[in-house]
Amino acid sequence: MPEVLFRVDLNKPMEEQDTPGHNRWHPDIPATVSVNPGAVFRMECKDWTDGQISNNDDPSDIRDVNLNRVHVLSGPVWVNGAEPGDLLVVDILDIGALPQSEWGFNGIFAKENGGSFLVDHYAQAAKSIWDFHGIYTTSRHLPGVKFAGLLHPGLIGTAPSHQLLDRWNRRESDLVATNPERMPPLANLPTPHSAVLGSLKGAEFDRIAREAARTVPPREHGGNCDIKNLSKGTRIYFPVYVNGAKLSMGDLHFSQGDGEVTFCGGIEMAGWLDLHVDVIKGGMAKYNIVNNPVFKPGPVEPRYTEYLVFEGISVHETTGQQLYMDAHVAYRNACLNAIEYLKTAMGFTGEQAYMLLGTAPVEGRIAGIVDIPNACCTLSIPTSIFDRDILPK
Amino acid sequence: MPEVLFRVDLNKPMEEQDTPGHNRWHPDIPATVSVNPGAVFRMECKDWTDGQISNNDDPSDIRDVNLNRVHVLSGPVWVNGAEPGDLLVVDILDIGALPQSEWGFNGIFAKENGGSFLVDHYAQAAKSIWDFHGIYTTSRHLPGVKFAGLLHPGLIGTAPSHQLLDRWNRRESDLVATNPERMPPLANLPTPHSAVLGSLKGAEFDRIAREAARTVPPREHGGNCDIKNLSKGTRIYFPVYVNGAKLSMGDLHFSQGDGEVTFCGGIEMAGWLDLHVDVIKGGMAKYNIVNNPVFKPGPVEPRYTEYLVFEGISVHETTGQQLYMDAHVAYRNACLNAIEYLKTAMGFTGEQAYMLLGTAPVEGRIAGIVDIPNACCTLSIPTSIFDRDILPK
Amino acid sequence: MPEVLFRVDLNKPMEEQDTPGHNRWHPDIPATVSVNPGAVFRMECKDWTDGQISNNDDPSDIRDVNLNRVHVLSGPVWVNGAEPGDLLVVDILDIGALPQSEWGFNGIFAKENGGSFLVDHYAQAAKSIWDFHGIYTTSRHLPGVKFAGLLHPGLIGTAPSHQLLDRWNRRESDLVATNPERMPPLANLPTPHSAVLGSLKGAEFDRIAREAARTVPPREHGGNCDIKNLSKGTRIYFPVYVNGAKLSMGDLHFSQGDGEVTFCGGIEMAGWLDLHVDVIKGGMAKYNIVNNPVFKPGPVEPRYTEYLVFEGISVHETTGQQLYMDAHVAYRNACLNAIEYLKTAMGFTGEQAYMLLGTAPVEGRIAGIVDIPNACCTLSIPTSIFDRDILPK
Amino acid sequence: MPEVLFRVDLNKPMEEQDTPGHNRWHPDIPATVSVNPGAVFRMECKDWTDGQISNNDDPSDIRDVNLNRVHVLSGPVWVNGAEPGDLLVVDILDIGALPQSEWGFNGIFAKENGGSFLVDHYAQAAKSIWDFHGIYTTSRHLPGVKFAGLLHPGLIGTAPSHQLLDRWNRRESDLVATNPERMPPLANLPTPHSAVLGSLKGAEFDRIAREAARTVPPREHGGNCDIKNLSKGTRIYFPVYVNGAKLSMGDLHFSQGDGEVTFCGGIEMAGWLDLHVDVIKGGMAKYNIVNNPVFKPGPVEPRYTEYLVFEGISVHETTGQQLYMDAHVAYRNACLNAIEYLKTAMGFTGEQAYMLLGTAPVEGRIAGIVDIPNACCTLSIPTSIFDRDILPK
Repeated sequence: MPEVLFRVDLNKPMEEQDTPGHNRWHPDIPATVSVNPGAVFRMECKDWTDGQISNNDDPSDIRDVNLNRVHVLSGPVWVNGAEPGDLLVVDILDIGALPQSEWGFNGIFAKENGGSFLVDHYAQAAKSIWDFHGIYTTSRHLPGVKFAGLLHPGLIGTAPSHQLLDRWNRRESDLVATNPERMPPLANLPTPHSAVLGSLKGAEFDRIAREAARTVPPREHGGNCDIKNLSKGTRIYFPVYVNGAKLSMGDLHFSQGDGEVTFCGGIEMAGWLDLHVDVIKGGMAKYNIVNNPVFKPGPVEPRYTEYLVFEGISVHETTGQQLYMDAHVAYRNACLNAIEYLKTAMGFTGEQAYMLLGTAPVEGRIAGIVDIPNACCTLSIPTSIFDRDILPK
Repeated sequence: MPEVLFRVDLNKPMEEQDTPGHNRWHPDIPATVSVNPGAVFRMECKDWTDGQISNNDDPSDIRDVNLNRVHVLSGPVWVNGAEPGDLLVVDILDIGALPQSEWGFNGIFAKENGGSFLVDHYAQAAKSIWDFHGIYTTSRHLPGVKFAGLLHPGLIGTAPSHQLLDRWNRRESDLVATNPERMPPLANLPTPHSAVLGSLKGAEFDRIAREAARTVPPREHGGNCDIKNLSKGTRIYFPVYVNGAKLSMGDLHFSQGDGEVTFCGGIEMAGWLDLHVDVIKGGMAKYNIVNNPVFKPGPVEPRYTEYLVFEGISVHETTGQQLYMDAHVAYRNACLNAIEYLKTAMGFTGEQAYMLLGTAPVEGRIAGIVDIPNACCTLSIPTSIFDRDILPK
Repeated sequence: MPEVLFRVDLNKPMEEQDTPGHNRWHPDIPATVSVNPGAVFRMECKDWTDGQISNNDDPSDIRDVNLNRVHVLSGPVWVNGAEPGDLLVVDILDIGALPQSEWGFNGIFAKENGGSFLVDHYAQAAKSIWDFHGIYTTSRHLPGVKFAGLLHPGLIGTAPSHQLLDRWNRRESDLVATNPERMPPLANLPTPHSAVLGSLKGAEFDRIAREAARTVPPREHGGNCDIKNLSKGTRIYFPVYVNGAKLSMGDLHFSQGDGEVTFCGGIEMAGWLDLHVDVIKGGMAKYNIVNNPVFKPGPVEPRYTEYLVFEGISVHETTGQQLYMDAHVAYRNACLNAIEYLKTAMGFTGEQAYMLLGTAPVEGRIAGIVDIPNACCTLSIPTSIFDRDILPK
Repeated sequence: MPEVLFRVDLNKPMEEQDTPGHNRWHPDIPATVSVNPGAVFRMECKDWTDGQISNNDDPSDIRDVNLNRVHVLSGPVWVNGAEPGDLLVVDILDIGALPQSEWGFNGIFAKENGGSFLVDHYAQAAKSIWDFHGIYTTSRHLPGVKFAGLLHPGLIGTAPSHQLLDRWNRRESDLVATNPERMPPLANLPTPHSAVLGSLKGAEFDRIAREAARTVPPREHGGNCDIKNLSKGTRIYFPVYVNGAKLSMGDLHFSQGDGEVTFCGGIEMAGWLDLHVDVIKGGMAKYNIVNNPVFKPGPVEPRYTEYLVFEGISVHETTGQQLYMDAHVAYRNACLNAIEYLKTAMGFTGEQAYMLLGTAPVEGRIAGIVDIPNACCTLSIPTSIFDRDILPK
């Protein structure tokens, strides 16, 4: 087992850990550890909410979650020799749940607390608990469903430079300014409330807590991409923006459907990552990887042969309004179509079917994005995750 | 070989075929043939432009294409006993190019003629010709690339009812009315220009040509979905809106990348489809399949193990503006990132790389669609289609 | 469509074709056509028996088949510039049934006519007819089964040199001499009876008919390997033993299980192959490919996720005798175990289950071959080929 | 993490563990623990040699291994309610190396100590050490090779009845009697030397040690099948021969090639198994599973697209003698052909190439087993495990 460079105690909040992590992005959050290129090491992670959700049948903790606390991250890891302009090569050698915590949760966020992809259809909080059985998971809240995990970090990224951070804050506050009263809000702007910034204290803490970006959106450095295929064996090429690269990670999922549609969001768990890191000097310019990470998925993703696929187009589902090439709306319709089907085929409530789409390894595709005015998106569900034949007869 | 129920002569335009097809959607276009549930038959199809594009190196035919003529379709096929509310089950038993025409084309449409997904970056017309070698294809215009086809009809669908047709026309004209001068236009409204309506003539032709919907967008009945996975062995469940279902198809592709990003659009070809049809009485209500078709892909899609994956987020690529959960923009950025990478890795021009994304079996995914304000989309390229190792080193 | 270099008329026996092929191996059988390295062309093939089996329910043609007539081959193809010591690169670009003949047959050979792998258990002739429906096949003789084809030439190979031919004849006659009365015989030695040798006539015919090797076994040059994975897209590297390489092929199968256990043998069909050939000069020594062909399977094999796997060990199934590391007996036991299971799970007769193993894409593996004294072989059956769930409950 | 029902201390031999396991098969070896149907639990296992092999570069421990000590097994596990005639359902929920021991070994056994599949070609002992890096492994003794593990128990089985044990002993001693002086021997007969029989002592130990079957061969109960696909997620259906079923397991492999050709044998490791058990009452008769276990492999096997495949036929590789349908010899020739190829393509010694075939996930197939007199076997090597392109050019 590789050396554990970051440990977590699940009974303590992130700021009380022996080595606290962080829940904001800022170039000046100090690294917790340094490694050389070529190093192999283990990072333990708390679940993204810092332990706010309990293994029970009551969704009130989902409804009342403090989102200023998310996502609690492990790191930053300083990689010796990494400099701006390099590529940081990160291999996800393995991922697992913590032995004392082999379960996870999925939740539909309430409209007043961020909402979710289908917030106008499912505005109330809901929760499902998933138990892990080796490679498999099941939920007492979704009977008739069993699948193998596709474990991945929902969030992993390098630290932004000051310049990049400024760009993030500017563009996101510009967006919020277009409709500042919107609920849920258009973006989460910096706030010191519930900030955790590693070992920082005092005036430096206050300054950085005011400036640091929230962790919710994916951005140029990677971050909260929620890409389900960043699983075991994946190699990621990250842009490096600061000396040492300052890699952080968290928000581990046992599984997730494309889109992470319920927002909370995959099967959220505490766990560990075994990582190998390396550096390609000057790699950003050499390979034209300048805007976002690039990655190569690993070879052990669960295999499926048979999918049932639902389509959606960019016509508003309630008003009937024609939208122009709107892949967001098209995918929403594909999800709604699938939910209606699963109500009949599996006897699910809408909430159960919705949580299935958030947790099971469903694939969300942009099929056609040029056939004006309708984008066409598809949602593919592997049929072997169900205990019965769900095909039309 | 199944009986050929619809034949095409590649040397004649669609209206001069022995049995002409059509290039508009309308419930009153007469069926060309009728079959019983359980029937197996072959349909031949012209390429979607009705033969406007030539196998040469000059993209002026792409630039000057008459889009009022697209998509020329084979059918409609009347399925005995099918009634509104049923599901029409269609099995795509096999697909092929016509023996005398084993090549296809991809084109970037010019901005003044519809444009394409990256119209603001690639506004000029371009063309690539693809030769078929059994299951494989190569292009003299994209050296170093070879892949197996994933043949599919870009367009297949049932006829709309009058009511559904009215809804289409109303919502699309409402959209165009929001910006009627836009170039390219927001949608293609009905026009008698270049309409082909089977055997119709005279006043009936004129009436229907004025009312009939264009074939460009996918809609509730399927239509121009451009889903690359509707390939050999696929079973599709279509909603039935009119007596006889009136199934039509065309726009065959030898291969296509998710999104069909260059608009013209996959590897376009003439060819044939072997189909089996059946009917599930009352299936729309029974299975809650009311808005769009549902399908199960076939078992012989080309297999890949290794992909290189590019990410994109919903920040405008030139202005830097933050957009809210815009999967369209996120996928556009993923495509742009991939193109920049391929310029270096393969020595392609931007146009070549762009046409690769339109033709090769790349996967476009909606990875995260809830992490406000950034949608995250990915574009996955199978690495074995290249004659060299394109990974960063 | 590539140029057809070898045509067959299904209504005529091989010796009456416009250009007759052959059914023996000999370096002096004249080539029927010559091609350059880089050529792409089509070869049509009769079924291996030269049309002796009919599409009906009566197995008497299987029982009475004239085996001196098999396998009728198309070719030889002379590849310009190929010399002994080279590697002949053959790409199987595509394979299909002849349009007028979209069906095939499988048969259990009777003990008195060659028998089959389980001859001591199934000594009587039996037959199943398989109809092709695009990529799929079904048999009226095996209800409840449907699968996609994995089309391949059971037989493809280069011509032997005189020296190699002598070695074959010597070693096979030595084997027969150990038990010349055995029924079925230990090997098929040269015989002029029913020989077809292309355009040869007279004394030259007589000489070669006496010397030429039968086509039944696979040998150093490839030949009747019956490898089901030599399917669409495969690249094969053949040793070259004579000038021009003299490539011949036939015995096309729509599908076959590993082992081709019923002997007749896969789903036998007439059809065509599209081939591309090239030459690697001096390749045999350069790559140490000296004993047998090497190949790389193609990318479009039907995909399966779920298999039910049967084991067998090298203990004689009736006497209980312990054999030493006998993979032949171990695989036989795996087959027998599978047949007994399928009798119950599918309600098959033993003959039906046996013909399923010969036709469906089952995988035969040598799992363990060192754990003295028991070899362990496995037989894996894809479960989705059945119309019901066959797993134990 | 499931409850650990069997623990091992890697610093102690099996007989000195707190709860000793066993290294013989006998119905009277007492169970170490009992579980109910439905139970989930963890079993730790020592490596099969009981720790005789060291992580160093000296193969003398392979040469001098005491084979009377193998295989040290964990168990037996008594399953409440299981009775003869039932099926014991065992799910392998997960498998791993012990955290303090993340390495394994492969060895070619010397001829004087059991030998291996290619003993007449590689008679000397050799060893390779494999380090685990998350899902991947590499060996300092085989540079240029890296692959993902396909972890599995080489050995898992239920206890034989007295009657079945008698049959084993009789048939194996009959075999040895045919050539008692053969080196290596034809089979390993019962011997008290180095026997470990759980908690048994005294006269009962002596009796059972004399009677108990060795663990080397696979038999009707499963046992040492060395099937590489018994990996994560597999469900096995075992025949039950004694009350409580008495399931035992060991001989864990991080990876293995089909055939386990070097005998020692895959990548041997200490580790753990998470298991779920259940019982199908009367299942043996109900499903005709009477001779050997049946299983369904799991969904997370490493995926490969491209293989290079070597063929072999049943002609003796040195004498040139024609053998009759001998799959053993045919597979040996396929292995020898692959080794010669890898010497050139990778610059390996014969021993290195041989150990690659024993450790990497190569597939061994029985392609044709009816084309008298030559069996045809194939060996498929995934090409992506190498750091260079090994295909002929």
